[in-house]
Amino acid sequence: MVVKSQIKFIKNLQQKKHRIQHKMFVAEGVKLVRELLDSDFEVEEIYTTDLGLVKNADKKQKISEADLQKMSGLKSPNKILAVFHFPIEKEIRATDWIVVLDDVRDPGNLGTIIRLCDWFGIDQLVCSKNTVDCFNPKTLQATMGSVSRVNMVYADLFDFLKKTSLPIYGAFMDGSTVYREQFPDKGILVMGNEANGVSAEVEALITKKIAIPQFGKSNTESLNVATATAILLNEIRRG
Amino acid sequence: MVVKSQIKFIKNLQQKKHRIQHKMFVAEGVKLVRELLDSDFEVEEIYTTDLGLVKNADKKQKISEADLQKMSGLKSPNKILAVFHFPIEKEIRATDWIVVLDDVRDPGNLGTIIRLCDWFGIDQLVCSKNTVDCFNPKTLQATMGSVSRVNMVYADLFDFLKKTSLPIYGAFMDGSTVYREQFPDKGILVMGNEANGVSAEVEALITKKIAIPQFGKSNTESLNVATATAILLNEIRRG
Repeated sequence: MVVKSQIKFIKNLQQKKHRIQHKMFVAEGVKLVRELLDSDFEVEEIYTTDLGLVKNADKKQKISEADLQKMSGLKSPNKILAVFHFPIEKEIRATDWIVVLDDVRDPGNLGTIIRLCDWFGIDQLVCSKNTVDCFNPKTLQATMGSVSRVNMVYADLFDFLKKTSLPIYGAFMDGSTVYREQFPDKGILVMGNEANGVSAEVEALITKKIAIPQFGKSNTESLNVATATAILLNEIRRG
Repeated sequence: MVVKSQIKFIKNLQQKKHRIQHKMFVAEGVKLVRELLDSDFEVEEIYTTDLGLVKNADKKQKISEADLQKMSGLKSPNKILAVFHFPIEKEIRATDWIVVLDDVRDPGNLGTIIRLCDWFGIDQLVCSKNTVDCFNPKTLQATMGSVSRVNMVYADLFDFLKKTSLPIYGAFMDGSTVYREQFPDKGILVMGNEANGVSAEVEALITKKIAIPQFGKSNTESLNVATATAILLNEIRRG
């Protein structure tokens, strides 16, 4: 039996301020919840219409479709919803490529970028403090569970980039073509905001500006930040 | 002065069946409407809160914020909304690369793919009849106006592919690595459905199955169809 206060608590976790206050977030859907349960994330409670969906013996309770509907942030809730604790932030290491996001605002874009990092074996992502929250429900859905395999840190980018010894590549419309770039084994790739690109403060610390050549007519809009990240990570890994 | 019947007509155009019935669609926002007005699309009527936003002398009328709100499919309407006629379908020519979509269902994915085609100078897109409608409002928003520069055709893919003399490449999880592929000057790239990939019927006509190598852990979800298209079009164009 779910009580009203639990439903209210879970609904509140849709909002960033409540997530930060409680250091917890909500994940929904069979695939996402299973991936997080199989990871280092610590689960607080699992609510499901079908107890057989996950192995965990404790911390799960059966609920009605109606209660799931009340808790859920989705239009069509998918059988299970779980509350997890924020992971412990791990330190960023300079051992491989690192993706840095300077003020990416769209939750779907962030989720897609996390999934891309996971695909390309890049497990470190540093976001500016203004970048959208990685535990935003829309971001989590777009990651398809990849969020459990990528170490995410929110940091002051200027401080972080100032201290690194790695070369810092940044995506710019007027950068040099990525096709001629010989990427090193490790480095940093900075991607900017959807509308304004990389901020001036961060731009000052970029070692090399790179761009994806355009083949269409000149009045074409720039690429979306998630698709540009896909192309650049592929260029880095293809060697 | 906007009358109720106009508002109802425009709201109806949010639905595919009404768009097909009237052979018209709605575009919203300054950027998108301007791009379509500058293209071959024929405009039926423009509704705007600020007549100075577009040059067109006729076919535009000033409306109140309140009326725009009533017509709009957006949460935050952006000053202008226009009704356009469907373009005349042009025949697909075998003169360059052609992208083929086999049952892509997400409007945002289709919009992103149209924008990618435009970026990479591919102006021919053939969609299966079950692929989401390119005049879906979410698709149009995601194209950022690129829809005016890409010729879109909905066709029976089996018939279309059966007749072509071009080599047919398809994205498959178990395809051979795209990094070793020497792409010809022209060909066809087939991308499949978000959940099920390329259909068996179309798969039978594929000349070469290609894949984007994975560098992360093996339990990673496949790439999203729009990001996979980004990477493959980049591979085709980079040479």
